[in-house]
Amino acid sequence: MTYRIDCLQYANWSEKIFRQMREGGVDAVHVTIAYHENFRETVLNIEAWNRWFEQFPDLIFQGRTGDDVRLARETGRTAIFFGFQNPSPIEDDIGLVEIVHTLGARFMQLSYNNQSLLATGCYEAEDPGLTRMGREVIEEMNRVGLVVDMSHSADRSTLEAIEHSTRPIAITHANPAQWAPARRNKSDAVIRALTESGGMIGFSLYPHHLKDKSACTLHSFCEMVARTAEKFGSSSLGIGSDLCQDHPDSVVDWMRMGRWTKRVDYGEGSAAAPGFPDMPDWFRDNRDFGNLETGLRTVGFDPEEVAGIMGENWLQFFDLSFGTVRKTQAHWAAE
Amino acid sequence: MTYRIDCLQYANWSEKIFRQMREGGVDAVHVTIAYHENFRETVLNIEAWNRWFEQFPDLIFQGRTGDDVRLARETGRTAIFFGFQNPSPIEDDIGLVEIVHTLGARFMQLSYNNQSLLATGCYEAEDPGLTRMGREVIEEMNRVGLVVDMSHSADRSTLEAIEHSTRPIAITHANPAQWAPARRNKSDAVIRALTESGGMIGFSLYPHHLKDKSACTLHSFCEMVARTAEKFGSSSLGIGSDLCQDHPDSVVDWMRMGRWTKRVDYGEGSAAAPGFPDMPDWFRDNRDFGNLETGLRTVGFDPEEVAGIMGENWLQFFDLSFGTVRKTQAHWAAE
Repeated sequence: MTYRIDCLQYANWSEKIFRQMREGGVDAVHVTIAYHENFRETVLNIEAWNRWFEQFPDLIFQGRTGDDVRLARETGRTAIFFGFQNPSPIEDDIGLVEIVHTLGARFMQLSYNNQSLLATGCYEAEDPGLTRMGREVIEEMNRVGLVVDMSHSADRSTLEAIEHSTRPIAITHANPAQWAPARRNKSDAVIRALTESGGMIGFSLYPHHLKDKSACTLHSFCEMVARTAEKFGSSSLGIGSDLCQDHPDSVVDWMRMGRWTKRVDYGEGSAAAPGFPDMPDWFRDNRDFGNLETGLRTVGFDPEEVAGIMGENWLQFFDLSFGTVRKTQAHWAAE
Repeated sequence: MTYRIDCLQYANWSEKIFRQMREGGVDAVHVTIAYHENFRETVLNIEAWNRWFEQFPDLIFQGRTGDDVRLARETGRTAIFFGFQNPSPIEDDIGLVEIVHTLGARFMQLSYNNQSLLATGCYEAEDPGLTRMGREVIEEMNRVGLVVDMSHSADRSTLEAIEHSTRPIAITHANPAQWAPARRNKSDAVIRALTESGGMIGFSLYPHHLKDKSACTLHSFCEMVARTAEKFGSSSLGIGSDLCQDHPDSVVDWMRMGRWTKRVDYGEGSAAAPGFPDMPDWFRDNRDFGNLETGLRTVGFDPEEVAGIMGENWLQFFDLSFGTVRKTQAHWAAE
């Protein structure tokens, strides 16, 4: 069986979901452990994960390197990699970049919809690009092996991050805007700059990022992947499902509004449909990764390309991205 | 040359001191990174160390396992192991035990002179023994591989910690009270319970713990080590110099008073001599470890015993103590 890696989920974690990961043959998941949390709050979220690791050692363990994905496969478990959707966990302190990496963080978005201390989010009217601190933090992230993720960032900031980063970056969960116009989906210019620099994009299954939303068909989704591969090659493509499972709607309020506003903000939703959207029936949860694999074969990918998109492309990216420059990457050490 | 490990220092760290560690052939140092700091403040102290590790990679690096002491020897550097003199960094949150261990903490005192949330300090009038949280935290420290250190704790709490801990504990820096009566030095009953349970004591060079204080002779110190070895064997003995180098006296105020009092507290000092005491002239700093080695030979220890006391006993203790129970110690995994 090919490796299966999901490069973004945010669930109301439970034994049920960890068992579904095993049923779906999912070797590794990048889990969001912070939306708007500050450092101390993020540490509390890590503590909660530590208790799950202690409680369910036969189902999950904390992933830190690409080899942990291989260990997960060998031992029949799922490796859990931590990530942040916002740089709020590092507050205004560049020293926290190394601290959170030591605690296991492997992806950090530079902005989440709004302006952050580092970069601009995709819902702002103006995007002045990377901030002074943003440039410093990207260099520190490059040094320690914390991946820059621009999923919720605006275009100029994203292009500047690709340019400024000396290591490939990621858009862990988004789709091409040409297929499904949405503020969160990405222009061809962004996807081109990303993939040409060795970066990765993870295709999202979150209905607001899909053509026809919850009614999107598996065929339409897989055709979109095929068209993207035609334009940009298949080696930079993966899955980042954005699966938000078993949460009450209060959680989507937290994701959208954090503590930055007192008003209701519907984000990608609307007053008529304010809650979490229904997932498409061919991707309800972790058990449905086989459907994606079948769908990709049907639209003409060969087995190697399917294996790449389902997990091996992310695995290769993990291998190159999570170590310090000095220790694991001879070609960077030359700098 | 034998391994040289110093199991307690707290200096005003600088390149000068790191170079003195190399001159003295010191392979590993347990450094205090918190006296009264809360979690966030302790993280700031780790960040400061991270900058030193980045700045002086040819002199020092962060130690996490016994093998890092061997790596230090092989590469001509000093491995730095983090420890706390007080449980203040874990606040009232048992989940922080694993977090600080992940960040590199390897020793934590359960109390520093005063009553803590966990145990009683050696300056309190009453010692009611381990608290409810103290017992819970010891079990968690045992699980993750964070060593219980009772250097500044009161006797009953210390004896109960030895009893309650399923892994050997340490008194990283103190001397026998029989040689130099001082509130911080330890009774034979405590040293016996400690060493019989596989624990370690590190002999202190801090003048308040020495017979005749700053005027103590090398011979008197080494005779004391010899008498201790006669009583309790030499395999549980090591060095924990308590070297507090290059600090202004404001720092000894912080050590003694933290934020718990508004009055002056002289601790082991006095109104007449409130500051740091002068070190004995045969142990001014890290360059003088050779004097200790020579002195121990002179009082009749054989070369193997000297090697044990200078570092190999601590190294063996590090090997057994810093890993999780499950991963590194087959004999604990049976529990």
